[in-house]
Amino acid sequence: MSTEGKPITSLAAVAYEAGKPLTVEEIIVDPPKAHEVRIRIKKTAVCHTDAYTLSGADPEGAFPSILGHEGAGVVESVGEDVTSVKPGDHVVALYTAECGKCKFCKSGKTNLCGSVRATQGKGVMPDGTSRFKNKKGETLLHFMGCSTFSEYTVVADVSVVAIDPKAPLESACLLGCGVTTGYGAAVKSANVQKGDTVAIFGAGTVGLSVAQGAQARGASKIILVDINDAKKKYMHEFGATDFVNPTKDLQNGQTIVEKLIEMTDGGLDFTFDCTGNVKVMRDALEACHKGWGVSVVIGVAASGQEISTRPFQLVTGRVWKGSAFGGIKGRSEMGGLIKDYREGSLKVDEFITNRRAFKEINDAFEDLHAGDSLRTVLDYTN
Amino acid sequence: MSTEGKPITSLAAVAYEAGKPLTVEEIIVDPPKAHEVRIRIKKTAVCHTDAYTLSGADPEGAFPSILGHEGAGVVESVGEDVTSVKPGDHVVALYTAECGKCKFCKSGKTNLCGSVRATQGKGVMPDGTSRFKNKKGETLLHFMGCSTFSEYTVVADVSVVAIDPKAPLESACLLGCGVTTGYGAAVKSANVQKGDTVAIFGAGTVGLSVAQGAQARGASKIILVDINDAKKKYMHEFGATDFVNPTKDLQNGQTIVEKLIEMTDGGLDFTFDCTGNVKVMRDALEACHKGWGVSVVIGVAASGQEISTRPFQLVTGRVWKGSAFGGIKGRSEMGGLIKDYREGSLKVDEFITNRRAFKEINDAFEDLHAGDSLRTVLDYTN
Repeated sequence: MSTEGKPITSLAAVAYEAGKPLTVEEIIVDPPKAHEVRIRIKKTAVCHTDAYTLSGADPEGAFPSILGHEGAGVVESVGEDVTSVKPGDHVVALYTAECGKCKFCKSGKTNLCGSVRATQGKGVMPDGTSRFKNKKGETLLHFMGCSTFSEYTVVADVSVVAIDPKAPLESACLLGCGVTTGYGAAVKSANVQKGDTVAIFGAGTVGLSVAQGAQARGASKIILVDINDAKKKYMHEFGATDFVNPTKDLQNGQTIVEKLIEMTDGGLDFTFDCTGNVKVMRDALEACHKGWGVSVVIGVAASGQEISTRPFQLVTGRVWKGSAFGGIKGRSEMGGLIKDYREGSLKVDEFITNRRAFKEINDAFEDLHAGDSLRTVLDYTN
Repeated sequence: MSTEGKPITSLAAVAYEAGKPLTVEEIIVDPPKAHEVRIRIKKTAVCHTDAYTLSGADPEGAFPSILGHEGAGVVESVGEDVTSVKPGDHVVALYTAECGKCKFCKSGKTNLCGSVRATQGKGVMPDGTSRFKNKKGETLLHFMGCSTFSEYTVVADVSVVAIDPKAPLESACLLGCGVTTGYGAAVKSANVQKGDTVAIFGAGTVGLSVAQGAQARGASKIILVDINDAKKKYMHEFGATDFVNPTKDLQNGQTIVEKLIEMTDGGLDFTFDCTGNVKVMRDALEACHKGWGVSVVIGVAASGQEISTRPFQLVTGRVWKGSAFGGIKGRSEMGGLIKDYREGSLKVDEFITNRRAFKEINDAFEDLHAGDSLRTVLDYTN
């Protein structure tokens, strides 16, 4: 019996309040309107951005809401005027939309799309309303245009991309954020070249994905910087050549910046912040080589936090930039990443350190802070 | 009678102490050692960096010293092993050296040369000593590798470039800093393209040179931002299309950032700070267009001052970089600028708003702060 056009009862994890665990319960998901797609999410992972918003530190975080933005599934039904995907398609949800028509998409200079930005930021669909309510009838907000913490979710048609159905969905879901964000930051935003030296602050899924991007480009030195020694075991898997723990590996009052400059005869060609810590962002910039070093901010800083440095750092040739979703245009470029993954040149499965039933989602948030965990993939079907 | 190999008595302006006027007096200039060149400076201009160091705000400023870094003249004699210039050559002194052999020069990525940096910063020649002393025998330090406030000066052979003798030296001297710094920042460091929108904070010689660089590239909008309305009269001469005075032209609590974003439908493709004010540098960054706007810091900030912003500004696609001497390699590229000037495509003479005898150098420092002054060129020969 088709569910098309009808509300669906869906297993979900509702964020009712900042700083509290998610409530796993059944909710009601309305059918997609014009230019919307309802997806049955099969696999979703938990990312630090979900935890950040749930913590209450995100000033734009709104509750009650359905979090989750790293997810893959199958299209259940589409609203009017949807031409890019059809029921049955395997898809990845995209928190960075791609409409192909706005000033941003047409510029050829950025992957940031303006089409649904305003409403996405408010937790609603482009028409200003939500497709989610709980069984009491209370409206639940969307999150990052994805809300993958509901088995059924509704997204804008510009916020979803169909993929090769031969790609496992548990792998594809990680391309919805972490792996793409890091890998793209290295190969696209920074455009690392053969022989370049690279330092990466934060050896989680994003940071290790930067490492594999740098390795793919033939970087000569790839230094991971992390205060957690438990992450050291992943360094070779993802192409890093060195690991520095600033809490242990610095002697005689040496700073991490001095250490990195010493290790690279003057500083790095590229550095990446994957921590969201503004002090680390400064270190990352200042560890860059005079004359040409480029530092890329990837991590999301806490509300109100600012980065700072002496302008002399820039005047003497360092460049400070940022990257969102790795500079990747989700609808145009996801196919290429899936192909790279299937051909073995892009590692994805190696980031899955935990698998859990969706109902254990609060434990998956705990996994994020565990010493050697990278990604926990949640499965709706068991 | 040749002066080669002998000390020369030279008219000079000595900075004996921070915050005090220069002392115009005769000093003794030793002959050049190996890889050094003694120049008879014919014309020199005063730049804000000279005033900054003289004020005492520059923590690296050392006294007593011979300031001045915007100068042109004729080679009087050369030391051993100098092959790039010969006596009689018309030359411009270069505060940004170019050795062609160091890691920086060979990188192809920067105009910052490492060859004489350490000693130049200490106010001495590469062998660690000075060529200047006063008539009491006290050593006087060099400044920025140039010291053009002495009629005779000694510079490293990597810090001087021969030019077409048909170019007037009073024009050539301005290519030693201000004009090249601004013009190069637009056409080289930023690489402004046809149709781009540009905002320039600070409408002095550097800022107006950015404007003419942007105009040369076909920028569609070139907005000058300055709190001094007296500068408005230069806007058309150098290609600017708009002038905004933040102290007068903002209504209803609008910020300069909001004003510029409104004027350009979302922000600038490129902004340039030519003020050295760190708050202005922040405005310049934040007035950039989301997704691709690039802000270039040119101005030199006061000691200890830091720039800051929310990292979100970078993650959403703005780029913060800097430029020194316009990214121009002085020995390789000065010839092209001189050619552009002689052919009429690069305005230089238009920046000369005052001419004085060298002895009036302290008045030239006053000129810098006069409302509508751009450059005062000092002449040693009258």
